[in-house]
Amino acid sequence: MSEPPPPAPASPLQLRLRIYCGQEAALGPGRVDLLERIVGTESIAQAARDMGMSYMKAWKLIQSMNRCFLSPLLEVHRGGKSGGTARLTPLGRQVLSLYRQMEQDSLAAVRLSEGKMAALLRPTDPGE
Amino acid sequence: MSEPPPPAPASPLQLRLRIYCGQEAALGPGRVDLLERIVGTESIAQAARDMGMSYMKAWKLIQSMNRCFLSPLLEVHRGGKSGGTARLTPLGRQVLSLYRQMEQDSLAAVRLSEGKMAALLRPTDPGE
Repeated sequence: MSEPPPPAPASPLQLRLRIYCGQEAALGPGRVDLLERIVGTESIAQAARDMGMSYMKAWKLIQSMNRCFLSPLLEVHRGGKSGGTARLTPLGRQVLSLYRQMEQDSLAAVRLSEGKMAALLRPTDPGE
Repeated sequence: MSEPPPPAPASPLQLRLRIYCGQEAALGPGRVDLLERIVGTESIAQAARDMGMSYMKAWKLIQSMNRCFLSPLLEVHRGGKSGGTARLTPLGRQVLSLYRQMEQDSLAAVRLSEGKMAALLRPTDPGE
């Protein structure tokens, strides 16, 4: 007749890393998501659609990323039926991997504190 | 006749931690800034002014923070000439300290990768 145990709470922590070149954002969660979707599809249009983003917006983000690093992260071929293809350059692969490593390392570093913080939060309804 | 050395670049990394209770933001950089300014002034109105924020906005953030944790982070006394005073509760001090510790720990964990990432960025003009 005991109550069912409460469901394990989702992590209450969101950690976001942004990389700047001067005042300009070079890389952040949205751009990294775009890069990874482009890796998956090789199509800028498809990656943009999957993110609910216009082609022009995706194109501008790519140009900004390419401009911010020592050399382009993406090798872009415009035009064609699919509206342009793009592939990561070796530097693009290196930057993407380094960013994901930074995310993992920073999250790992706060794992214990995250649990302490979660224990101080008011429990919420799972559906809330 | 050698050129002056370039100035040391500012850190290109921005790391932001947010704590959620369910779907609601409980704590993040802005709220922590507000808490610390309230600690410094004991005045909600002054802290809000210093942040370019309306009193009502600060008040709503405080209510939200107080609601999200097991017990209030701030003990609030409304009214009076100064428009309300507030002090951190013991839980408020604990949460604030834990959040700052998480920030420091996560930043420390990516210090090396941050340097690697910085080296891949195109140098920018200091004034840019």
